[in-house]
Amino acid sequence: MIFHPTGTFEDDATKQALSRDITAMYTDRGLPEFYVVVNFIKLAGNDVYIGGRPNTETPLIRIVINHIAITQPNTDEAYHRVTTRISQILRPYIADKGYDEEYHVDETERRLWRIQGMDLPPFGSEQERLWATANKAIALK
Amino acid sequence: MIFHPTGTFEDDATKQALSRDITAMYTDRGLPEFYVVVNFIKLAGNDVYIGGRPNTETPLIRIVINHIAITQPNTDEAYHRVTTRISQILRPYIADKGYDEEYHVDETERRLWRIQGMDLPPFGSEQERLWATANKAIALK
Amino acid sequence: MIFHPTGTFEDDATKQALSRDITAMYTDRGLPEFYVVVNFIKLAGNDVYIGGRPNTETPLIRIVINHIAITQPNTDEAYHRVTTRISQILRPYIADKGYDEEYHVDETERRLWRIQGMDLPPFGSEQERLWATANKAIALK
Repeated sequence: MIFHPTGTFEDDATKQALSRDITAMYTDRGLPEFYVVVNFIKLAGNDVYIGGRPNTETPLIRIVINHIAITQPNTDEAYHRVTTRISQILRPYIADKGYDEEYHVDETERRLWRIQGMDLPPFGSEQERLWATANKAIALK
Repeated sequence: MIFHPTGTFEDDATKQALSRDITAMYTDRGLPEFYVVVNFIKLAGNDVYIGGRPNTETPLIRIVINHIAITQPNTDEAYHRVTTRISQILRPYIADKGYDEEYHVDETERRLWRIQGMDLPPFGSEQERLWATANKAIALK
Repeated sequence: MIFHPTGTFEDDATKQALSRDITAMYTDRGLPEFYVVVNFIKLAGNDVYIGGRPNTETPLIRIVINHIAITQPNTDEAYHRVTTRISQILRPYIADKGYDEEYHVDETERRLWRIQGMDLPPFGSEQERLWATANKAIALK
């Protein structure tokens, strides 16, 4: 979920380009494209307050990322790899545009996740590869 | 939170029917009705990207569920019971309408939850039954 | 994220005052002001259902709080201190206005959080004090 103020991410081409770059971060790990959902949620500058000040000066882009398919082992190195990768992807769309940037990742339980009513195939499984190739959820036979 | 594109869940009757069915999932466990809050958040098709593609073809309904009152023991069986029940409830409103569906559940700490400024009574307690009967939070005497 | 129905939190002065009071809760612990982001998300009464009923009678203000900078030890006392403080801050803006109130806190991993592409300095560190004084993220030399 990308919370952005009015005046930022107004054109579809930019939203799509960022969404594609985010998607590539996950397909590089072998995950199906359709696992990656990006919501742009526009909020007026006077509906967002940063330290009590409205988001009407340098636009703050506040991103909440939810990881379910792959979560990280509890090590500084693993977390650092993830944040380094996310920061690389965001930079051209946020910092390089002169916007302020904040994000955090929330990891949630894979077994409490379903697509098209189906449990997700194990990470790295043959079934997952089939879903990735078809780019949709396919029922197990 | 039910994230849905323009053109879906546009009528109040459908939104209310789904909300009632979701509520029943929890009141069946004895929880008060008012614990169950459902937000419909409409996002334009070009504000949501699935694998880098805008949500303008088959509508994707993306649901984020937060469980606080009851969380599950860490077993495949417990998680499976929850997702099976949720999928049953959603099917007539999503899959049967030809929409795509994805949901996940996030479980958060019960002791960091308050209603009307009050801590919640223990699950299955007499106080909880009083809240359920009154369908509102009642201060302990 | 403060989910509020149409007709509540309509004026900027109220939103800013609440945001400032929320910010003070965290700056009292030494955290920088800009760590505290408050989003007001307005939803029509017929887009929110409480126990299956639309949010068109007594307005429900539903708040989702995300703690990343400081999380609590797993003790009743620690959690109780946090919720007691939050309830104090919210009361004049919600209960005293005759609105219904619900909130919960979700705690997420500090090492999966970045501002301006930078990892956050340790809680209570000299670097954190520099960020607090400048009220912005400053690169380490």
